[in-house]
Amino acid sequence: MKTEKVPLESGIRDLITTLYPICRSITGDGVRETLRIMKNIIPLEIVEIPTGTKVFDWEVPREWNIRDAYIKDLKGNKIVDFKDSNLHVVNYSIPVDKIIPFSELKNHLHTLPEYPDWIPYRTSYYKETWGFCVQDSRVKSMKDEEYEVKIDSTLAEGHLTYGELYIPGSIKDEVLFSCHVCHPSLANDNLSGIAVMTYLARHLMTLKLHYSYRFLFVPGTIGSIVWLASNQDKLKNVKHGLIAVNLGDPGKINFKKTRLGNAEIDRAVEAILRDSGQPYGLIDFFPYGYDERQYNSPGINLPVGCIMRTPHNQFPEYHTSADNLDFIRAESLMDSYHKILNIVDLLESNRTYFNTQPYCEPQLGKRGLYRHIGGSNATVDQMALLWVLNLADGFHSLLDIAERSGESYESLKKAADLLLQHDLLEVRDGESRSKGIQV
Amino acid sequence: MKTEKVPLESGIRDLITTLYPICRSITGDGVRETLRIMKNIIPLEIVEIPTGTKVFDWEVPREWNIRDAYIKDLKGNKIVDFKDSNLHVVNYSIPVDKIIPFSELKNHLHTLPEYPDWIPYRTSYYKETWGFCVQDSRVKSMKDEEYEVKIDSTLAEGHLTYGELYIPGSIKDEVLFSCHVCHPSLANDNLSGIAVMTYLARHLMTLKLHYSYRFLFVPGTIGSIVWLASNQDKLKNVKHGLIAVNLGDPGKINFKKTRLGNAEIDRAVEAILRDSGQPYGLIDFFPYGYDERQYNSPGINLPVGCIMRTPHNQFPEYHTSADNLDFIRAESLMDSYHKILNIVDLLESNRTYFNTQPYCEPQLGKRGLYRHIGGSNATVDQMALLWVLNLADGFHSLLDIAERSGESYESLKKAADLLLQHDLLEVRDGESRSKGIQV
Amino acid sequence: MKTEKVPLESGIRDLITTLYPICRSITGDGVRETLRIMKNIIPLEIVEIPTGTKVFDWEVPREWNIRDAYIKDLKGNKIVDFKDSNLHVVNYSIPVDKIIPFSELKNHLHTLPEYPDWIPYRTSYYKETWGFCVQDSRVKSMKDEEYEVKIDSTLAEGHLTYGELYIPGSIKDEVLFSCHVCHPSLANDNLSGIAVMTYLARHLMTLKLHYSYRFLFVPGTIGSIVWLASNQDKLKNVKHGLIAVNLGDPGKINFKKTRLGNAEIDRAVEAILRDSGQPYGLIDFFPYGYDERQYNSPGINLPVGCIMRTPHNQFPEYHTSADNLDFIRAESLMDSYHKILNIVDLLESNRTYFNTQPYCEPQLGKRGLYRHIGGSNATVDQMALLWVLNLADGFHSLLDIAERSGESYESLKKAADLLLQHDLLEVRDGESRSKGIQV
Repeated sequence: MKTEKVPLESGIRDLITTLYPICRSITGDGVRETLRIMKNIIPLEIVEIPTGTKVFDWEVPREWNIRDAYIKDLKGNKIVDFKDSNLHVVNYSIPVDKIIPFSELKNHLHTLPEYPDWIPYRTSYYKETWGFCVQDSRVKSMKDEEYEVKIDSTLAEGHLTYGELYIPGSIKDEVLFSCHVCHPSLANDNLSGIAVMTYLARHLMTLKLHYSYRFLFVPGTIGSIVWLASNQDKLKNVKHGLIAVNLGDPGKINFKKTRLGNAEIDRAVEAILRDSGQPYGLIDFFPYGYDERQYNSPGINLPVGCIMRTPHNQFPEYHTSADNLDFIRAESLMDSYHKILNIVDLLESNRTYFNTQPYCEPQLGKRGLYRHIGGSNATVDQMALLWVLNLADGFHSLLDIAERSGESYESLKKAADLLLQHDLLEVRDGESRSKGIQV
Repeated sequence: MKTEKVPLESGIRDLITTLYPICRSITGDGVRETLRIMKNIIPLEIVEIPTGTKVFDWEVPREWNIRDAYIKDLKGNKIVDFKDSNLHVVNYSIPVDKIIPFSELKNHLHTLPEYPDWIPYRTSYYKETWGFCVQDSRVKSMKDEEYEVKIDSTLAEGHLTYGELYIPGSIKDEVLFSCHVCHPSLANDNLSGIAVMTYLARHLMTLKLHYSYRFLFVPGTIGSIVWLASNQDKLKNVKHGLIAVNLGDPGKINFKKTRLGNAEIDRAVEAILRDSGQPYGLIDFFPYGYDERQYNSPGINLPVGCIMRTPHNQFPEYHTSADNLDFIRAESLMDSYHKILNIVDLLESNRTYFNTQPYCEPQLGKRGLYRHIGGSNATVDQMALLWVLNLADGFHSLLDIAERSGESYESLKKAADLLLQHDLLEVRDGESRSKGIQV
Repeated sequence: MKTEKVPLESGIRDLITTLYPICRSITGDGVRETLRIMKNIIPLEIVEIPTGTKVFDWEVPREWNIRDAYIKDLKGNKIVDFKDSNLHVVNYSIPVDKIIPFSELKNHLHTLPEYPDWIPYRTSYYKETWGFCVQDSRVKSMKDEEYEVKIDSTLAEGHLTYGELYIPGSIKDEVLFSCHVCHPSLANDNLSGIAVMTYLARHLMTLKLHYSYRFLFVPGTIGSIVWLASNQDKLKNVKHGLIAVNLGDPGKINFKKTRLGNAEIDRAVEAILRDSGQPYGLIDFFPYGYDERQYNSPGINLPVGCIMRTPHNQFPEYHTSADNLDFIRAESLMDSYHKILNIVDLLESNRTYFNTQPYCEPQLGKRGLYRHIGGSNATVDQMALLWVLNLADGFHSLLDIAERSGESYESLKKAADLLLQHDLLEVRDGESRSKGIQV
């Protein structure tokens, strides 16, 4: 791996820390500021789509921006203050500025009674309303009859903003990575995904790649719909894809499969997770969750899975103020980064070979590829060599061989490289694709 | 469900009670009388096929009728009396009227030593003989040297009788139901099947149906062979079929699959049983049992499974006098009825839809189909909506979607109905089939 | 089974005992002598291929012969003597005759520290070297500074020798059996295979066979490569094949599948092992082990599995002096023989029938094939009859029927023979193949 300008682990961590305080939403200056900061690391194209643009069954909503918000008692004490946490305001709240009885205010307060000191995260993008998300303990202490509420927001004609990076490889077939960038101060969901994928992109830009790679940093749901609607001519190139989310929590890695269920990306991820020797989970596709819903809709039907650590709703901190900088772990972020890099390496190097000596085994001994005193066991590497030779019949890719043999993908790739050097394998389609990215 | 002329449960129960005393066999007046009584409830066509008619490898046997039978001691005491139970005589016994030594009579007596107070049920349709079936305890008390035996039966040219009801639907494709009607006083096997299917037919006649339905009430083996041989031109219309038997015992529901094993009827029954949340059994096809043997023979090969509660030979009361009116349960009969009705509803409503907004998800919120405050879980119904939308690609029927999603068929059907109302689904084959039978 | 000239069990045992002392290798007089002895039992063709002959990626090596070898102390005491065990010399050792320090000799000694009284078996066919295999306990007792070592061997132009027997059947399609004959005094690996297959061949020669059979007795690896390279025109005839090895140890039977994994031979062996009611193991193909490596190489790809008792490396006696005449059991040898004979019988008799009365069941009763008093269970034979009738649709072989029904192959074969006698089955392809070998 070439020397990084900024060390990888601190780069990822710093990016998350920098982005954490920003109040993001599906539109507005929070996303713009986020993408501008990421642009210091990778040459993102920042795209602005006007309010009202029709995208399939949807249209781009008005742009939302917020400057301040609070609840005060009539003595002027701030009970709830947006400046303390941008989660305090229901995302996309319309402006409000009035004194109202607590009995009415109560209907605009969202709490988590089971976690009385946590602030929930709530949104209302498509129905005009306003509200505050507050610690349940604080609401319980509100005894006055009336309060002043103020939300200094605007909901107006403007734009939806997203970021895109295209890294050309030697062929037009591409791998699509997509992250949602619309959540305010939530660290695991999804600053972890944003930061890991930013640094993955930075690394891939330094390599000679077989596939082209596209990184999308888009607001959830409407952002991926906007991109898909605006780029229908590019969809035919997308051969593999991943949503990256929740990459920093302490849980094991989980992979939610594509709608197809046995696409190459499904099999590639499973092979890498299996080879890791660490616990992992596989989840069949279901039409809910993150933007895989859009990529896997029946008319789009791209092979896009979702790689994550703990799935949404399966950790109590999910969509609360407890999903903060203390919740995520450096080792989880780095493990996620390296596993995704291994998946990229598999996609880059997976190919189908022909054994040039397919009639019986070639004599490995005369090429120095075989131990000479018979009678004891073959080593694992020896078995990798023999499996590649046996299945290099033009019908089995290295990934097919890994699945059938139980050998690790990495050992088979090394075996194939060695056999290529000895002219015992050949590629017949004339392609000069990369031999993987040498993870 | 429309108002029934006779309440369903008492109707089924009364029919069984009325039919129970009649001495049925594969031919003769017992079957005729049975079908005549059923004709008071549904407009059965009663068909008579003459003795000697060739039907495939078989021919219609002589008609058997019996008026009386007994074993008397020489003092004139009736030891065994046909009037007590029609099981006492081996079905299809030839006439006999003589005094014989007990040592000879013994060879004509059938008992159940393990259940000394039960009378077994035995037949000898295709080999001329006579015999009595007697409680083992009673045989043990027979100490005389000689007895008078009398069987006042006839075995003569006549007819085989069966009942048929055809309910036309909007297409010629049909669902075939078949019950055997040849057993004498046995309640579960198969008065339970006869009564449940009679009332199912009565109900289906009140509905607008997509498929046509055919109900056969036929003597076992020879009856289904007669029908198949006489109706070869109709077989191409049979798309789904069920044998209905043993529907009243207290056991769980079992389904024996068709020879094909994965026909739509196999999958429909499994979905309904799975959705019920109650225990059930699935049995792979084997070429023994009831008339599924004939319907699934290699030259016929119709997708006809067998729905039952406890399979033959798996309850000790099977084919004995203990399979009487006390053995069957109203709740079992009603549960069987409703499960079969649910299967019919599935077949009627199972279809393949096209999502009219297949590019990304349609915006459910603007149609009032989505809850507005994000951040919490989708309900089950929400998931049914999303699954139907995701798989409404013209390749997946509702049943396919149920199998893949794990959602209940009923919830998916409701979701599809709702999406159709909002023009989010369409049917492209121009058919105006029923939306199910609104069970 | 016809009367054997020599009783089977003693014949197999005597052949092993006779062959045990001979020092075999992949070339040389030991293999010649072995084949000459076998020729007293079956009319083997003995083939000689000159050193240097190119065979695919290999070439026939120089011929190795050995007359004597020992290690002496300088007082003239023989510490290690080839005459005690031909395992003492590393197979294919070059000649040596000198006095060397123990510190140098040590590098040429092979031992088994975990079994200090056993002699290991080692070879070095393709790298010129010399060595002795010695009990670890004996090496520990060697305290002198210098020893005399002598190996009176030759490595010179000559031939590779193998044996072949072709038994013509009524068609050219053939079953290939292959055994390696290159191991010196090792009883289970593979004198057990050699002897069992010699007597199987002797038996098959007495029968009228459907398939042709080819028995190969070849040196491991290079021998099968030689045969394959010299007989490429015959490969298209090979429909089924087995490597036979380790047939005498006390372990259960194991079958290592072909590279295809579901060839008829894979399914035939599994059916026979399942039907035996005894424990057995199934092993997926992997490209290591015995000559199945060559037969299953990608350019050859013949359906050749490997039948054995305990696999190589899974018994401590493997490739040591403890694999001696005491290690193998008469009952294991006979069980192996009979199971392979049952596999041959299955291959010979497996065919696809047509039910001549496919419309409903034929009336078995009028043909005396059905018990007459109804109401009790069908026996297993009855079920075999019904299964054959049900699946005799031209799509299911007897083996297919065995797999689907769970009935034993033997009972289905008997049922099919009975149904053929009653003209209820027919064969439509006009072939007059054998009805199996009446094991």
